[in-house]
Amino acid sequence: MTLSIILIEPQLGENIGMCARAMLNCGLTDLRLVRPIAKWPGNAKAKATAAGADEVIDNAKVFASTKEAVADLEASYAMTARRRDMVKVTYKPRSFIEEIAPTIDENHRVGVIFGSESSGLVNEDVALCEGVITVPLNPEFSSLNLAQSVLTIAYEWHQYFDDTQEKTLHVRDTRLAKKQEVIGFFEQLEKELDKSGFYRVPEKKPQMVLNLRNIFTRCELTIQEVQTLRGVVSSLISLKGSKYDT
Amino acid sequence: MTLSIILIEPQLGENIGMCARAMLNCGLTDLRLVRPIAKWPGNAKAKATAAGADEVIDNAKVFASTKEAVADLEASYAMTARRRDMVKVTYKPRSFIEEIAPTIDENHRVGVIFGSESSGLVNEDVALCEGVITVPLNPEFSSLNLAQSVLTIAYEWHQYFDDTQEKTLHVRDTRLAKKQEVIGFFEQLEKELDKSGFYRVPEKKPQMVLNLRNIFTRCELTIQEVQTLRGVVSSLISLKGSKYDT
Repeated sequence: MTLSIILIEPQLGENIGMCARAMLNCGLTDLRLVRPIAKWPGNAKAKATAAGADEVIDNAKVFASTKEAVADLEASYAMTARRRDMVKVTYKPRSFIEEIAPTIDENHRVGVIFGSESSGLVNEDVALCEGVITVPLNPEFSSLNLAQSVLTIAYEWHQYFDDTQEKTLHVRDTRLAKKQEVIGFFEQLEKELDKSGFYRVPEKKPQMVLNLRNIFTRCELTIQEVQTLRGVVSSLISLKGSKYDT
Repeated sequence: MTLSIILIEPQLGENIGMCARAMLNCGLTDLRLVRPIAKWPGNAKAKATAAGADEVIDNAKVFASTKEAVADLEASYAMTARRRDMVKVTYKPRSFIEEIAPTIDENHRVGVIFGSESSGLVNEDVALCEGVITVPLNPEFSSLNLAQSVLTIAYEWHQYFDDTQEKTLHVRDTRLAKKQEVIGFFEQLEKELDKSGFYRVPEKKPQMVLNLRNIFTRCELTIQEVQTLRGVVSSLISLKGSKYDT
């Protein structure tokens, strides 16, 4: 289950290499080149910028025409920044992936074609495609680098299948503190502050207690951090002895 | 309302330029460099790969430390691929943007810090941050190019605010055909096929009619295309006269 990336007349080895790297970053491996302008195969710059994505570079297939490059696929889509004078469905990268990813299997393989760095895609290639993909970008500066353009598709592809949590608190080899442990620290802190004369204006004390508690409840403390904070308070108390009482 | 991009010890002018390009593509302009290893300012390669994002390059600010680079921001987040031995919230790029974008204004400015190409971020810089961002990627090949990494954040930022339609059918200067116009074409086609002897097995005719109609109802035809198809049928009829009847 994969998505094919088809580059039409890519000019720079660096860009092909960066496309390969972005693809493999996102688990894609089927790279197809149509009439590459860059020396191919054996492009040293491509190999360098691929940064280890050798399996993509080494297995890239070369074709003489777009027609041949898409022949074995069931559908192809054209990545293009320009509005075409054509009747064609236009997707954003995310809506494209959401539409095609659930349909892809060995009987429904899909490719995305990308034009050359300087001239983009010709209308004849776009007309071979089931739809067009356009990345919504700054209208004043909308030309994406080729590998960046490939990344938007590859990235959305990988995110679609990714099921890691949206937001995780890593707690190393400890655990989050229970409320009673955090409250225990609050009580220690408030007792010591009381003794030290921190609450000089008694009627302000309740609000000051709440303010301090609010700082630490925003932190989602681990049990280890609660112990550290208790240690901080104890240490500061002992410092007070040496600093003020002598 | 913006997001600051902070590169720590970037090594290659090309990468700084591509970061600037990716930023401006997505409407971001505040680039900050901490102890750039690449020659700065006046890096010709950065200028070249920025491909016109001069306002980002020319206004990039240089800092001697991460602490100074984030000083005027209310929050900073660290982009990192490696799991750290630290108690820190980890986001995906999309969930990060969804969390922070609604909070950003002139009193809540946020930056994302990126480590150098070779060594990433040191823990001291990560510890200055409110959270960590990690792009879920192919675990076998998860090292993103610096500019690609910046793009995932800038892209999600721009997509968050983008309100263009998810899927649009561009119809040029015409309009989608009304059902009665499409059905008119079906009836013309079916009449002519009847006359030409296409339905040789009468009991199969109803299914063949449905099959043909299904092809064209999947197309979402414009009125211009319906007229073209009617012309195609008429033309083929006239061809039949010349081909078979003489």
